[in-house]
Amino acid sequence: VSGVALVLVAHGSRREASNAEVRALAATLAARAEGQFSSVHAGFLELAEPSIPEAIAAAIAAGAREVRVLPWFLSAGRHVSEDIPAQVAEARARHPGVPIHLLGHAGALPGMAEILLAAAGGGGG
Amino acid sequence: VSGVALVLVAHGSRREASNAEVRALAATLAARAEGQFSSVHAGFLELAEPSIPEAIAAAIAAGAREVRVLPWFLSAGRHVSEDIPAQVAEARARHPGVPIHLLGHAGALPGMAEILLAAAGGGGG
Repeated sequence: VSGVALVLVAHGSRREASNAEVRALAATLAARAEGQFSSVHAGFLELAEPSIPEAIAAAIAAGAREVRVLPWFLSAGRHVSEDIPAQVAEARARHPGVPIHLLGHAGALPGMAEILLAAAGGGGG
Repeated sequence: VSGVALVLVAHGSRREASNAEVRALAATLAARAEGQFSSVHAGFLELAEPSIPEAIAAAIAAGAREVRVLPWFLSAGRHVSEDIPAQVAEARARHPGVPIHLLGHAGALPGMAEILLAAAGGGGG
């Protein structure tokens, strides 16, 4: 148990299967984290629960002494540049003793090009 | 030159910076493909150009003898399950001599959990 929690933040959808996909990914991350994170949570910007501040509060209630927030978004639109930072700022104000770090969005993460190329396979022709 | 072209398919946005991000990713993929693909193209479901059939047609006009279509989407909603397959089917009907393969969407690709965990870092506490 590292004391660091990860909160995966998605947009949220009226289609519950999409929200379930996000929760399943958070569970996969928890299973593979192998002590890297004390807990992994899913949070939603809108249309699904828990909200981002709720997910952060749950991580802290579960004992996290540090929280890292990872936006599960492909592009750096308004949600990534404004809405999520605003909600993270709100969580910081509520939990002044806990560092809450906002990471870069998923679409621009290092290694993304490599897994796309690997998935698209090679050779052919 | 492998004869295989990759078409990265995104939703498309009214925000041109988001479309530019997709085109930049396609350019990154082309630069890193190192002969794996003869060309890499971006195509858009709506709100931006070229369309998916136009991007596929451009790949074939550039000499591709096989096309692989990779949906740049995080979740398997209606766009991934219905709209993109319909446009790919349209392209197949127009280009009967060229195999056009539709790959799984980006959010569910192998290796995704690993790059998220790597980005979120470790240790702490």
